[in-house]
Amino acid sequence: MNRISEKLLKMISDFAGEFRGAFNIRENGECVGRRSTPNIRIEAKKDAPGLIIHISPETAKEIVYIPACVTHGAIDDLVYNDFYVEAGADVTIIAGCGVHTDSGDTARHNGIHRFFLESGAHVLYKEKHVGTGTGTGQKRIDPVTDMVLMENSILEMDTVQIGGIDSTVRKTTARLAAGARLTIHESILTKKNETAKTDFIVSMDGEDSAVDLISRSVAKGTSRQDYHSRIMGNCRCSGHSECDAILADQGIVNASPELFAGSIDAVLIHEAAIGKIAGEQVIKLRTLGLTEEEAEETIIKGFLKA
Amino acid sequence: MNRISEKLLKMISDFAGEFRGAFNIRENGECVGRRSTPNIRIEAKKDAPGLIIHISPETAKEIVYIPACVTHGAIDDLVYNDFYVEAGADVTIIAGCGVHTDSGDTARHNGIHRFFLESGAHVLYKEKHVGTGTGTGQKRIDPVTDMVLMENSILEMDTVQIGGIDSTVRKTTARLAAGARLTIHESILTKKNETAKTDFIVSMDGEDSAVDLISRSVAKGTSRQDYHSRIMGNCRCSGHSECDAILADQGIVNASPELFAGSIDAVLIHEAAIGKIAGEQVIKLRTLGLTEEEAEETIIKGFLKA
Repeated sequence: MNRISEKLLKMISDFAGEFRGAFNIRENGECVGRRSTPNIRIEAKKDAPGLIIHISPETAKEIVYIPACVTHGAIDDLVYNDFYVEAGADVTIIAGCGVHTDSGDTARHNGIHRFFLESGAHVLYKEKHVGTGTGTGQKRIDPVTDMVLMENSILEMDTVQIGGIDSTVRKTTARLAAGARLTIHESILTKKNETAKTDFIVSMDGEDSAVDLISRSVAKGTSRQDYHSRIMGNCRCSGHSECDAILADQGIVNASPELFAGSIDAVLIHEAAIGKIAGEQVIKLRTLGLTEEEAEETIIKGFLKA
Repeated sequence: MNRISEKLLKMISDFAGEFRGAFNIRENGECVGRRSTPNIRIEAKKDAPGLIIHISPETAKEIVYIPACVTHGAIDDLVYNDFYVEAGADVTIIAGCGVHTDSGDTARHNGIHRFFLESGAHVLYKEKHVGTGTGTGQKRIDPVTDMVLMENSILEMDTVQIGGIDSTVRKTTARLAAGARLTIHESILTKKNETAKTDFIVSMDGEDSAVDLISRSVAKGTSRQDYHSRIMGNCRCSGHSECDAILADQGIVNASPELFAGSIDAVLIHEAAIGKIAGEQVIKLRTLGLTEEEAEETIIKGFLKA
């Protein structure tokens, strides 16, 4: 593993020189480290680039790390990772991604992740995305996440774009069986002339399934973010979505949250708010000794974490 | 004017045998009554079916009635009405529409209304839509409403679909100059296998313009409603939209409210809620002596008027 990967890993996961437990590190399209554990088996796919990750029913509070790094331009990495989480397993999956270019060439990672949660499985899925490097080449991350939640399974997705990504298109779909619960927290920070496009499609197909979708955007510089979600309630179920955005400079946001009620027993709720930082908040923090910039920084950090 | 028109007029406007003040009654594509007043001049268009309505600056608290009726099948009425509301005028425009067919042929009204509000003008625009008749022919009303609001003008639109319309596509656009204020209240009731499609596009282009868009839907039977709105804040302005729906039987609703913030000084807020009537509400009204059906009827009426 090269120096840039090490740096990126520290930013996107809690890497401190090594990982405990199961992991696979992908660097510029190659595997540069892998370990399975008795409960978590990681295998290379035979028919496509990527991994098959088996999580056994005995798995309890284990963590598996599946980070990917692109450390120079002229790399267009495409990977298909499939997670099979067996009945009753309880696992945390950390799958960040960093792209770096010091040249004029594009560094791109395109990760297609599929999750199959058997009944009663519980997954906490965390991913952080970051772009670094002094090159003029585009830094792009285009993740596709497809989730199938069987009866009473729970998936919590926590996805953060820290910054430095010139362009991202993020597509997430989920299908929920009876009693399944999906929570998604998304935070995206864009600066300069970056663009971020997000699309969520969640279909609640089993009785008493539930989704909670929270998206926070901060658009600075001349960046632009486009948010679309579609929550479908096809049975007795409940859906809630919330998309809030803070604008600064000449930032632009378009938010298009869609609710489809295909059953009278679906309860669907949505809220959205877009605006700039409230002046009073800045004044309050300035009286505590912060500069205007520090105050804004603090407010934005708090907002993205909420 | 025929008997069916008289009946329809009573349902869609406060008609009691005659109108006071300015009016134009359209029946099956023909004018069957018109009166101008010193302040409100109604003229037939020369190049297309429809009217030009001039509202003079002196107009204060006057009402003008522009209802349209289609009283039998095999009528596909298309009309272009333009309202020129001069600076400072204060007027109420009542423009309901009823379609009736006792045959297997379609009765359709397609009204394209354009509003030009000069600075400081104030318009209350009310329209009620209803379909009646025992025929199997489709009853359709497809209104297009385009509004241009100059500085500090105010337009309040109150649009209600009472029932009986098999299919409707409703398109509304508005452009707001500085200080202009637009309020839209929409209530749509669909039953049986009726469909209703609503599309609002509001562009706030002048400083301190504001829009408040409230949509209430009730979908009963196997009816389906599709709601889309797009509120664009291109400057210092504020936008609020709210779309709530009650489902009964096998009713279906799709709500897609979009917010576009093209300026950091735009403040945009949206809320949506879809679900069936809460059980407690029905129980409460039943303890007051109402049957379950009466209780539901009462709740729906209150919801649509709110």
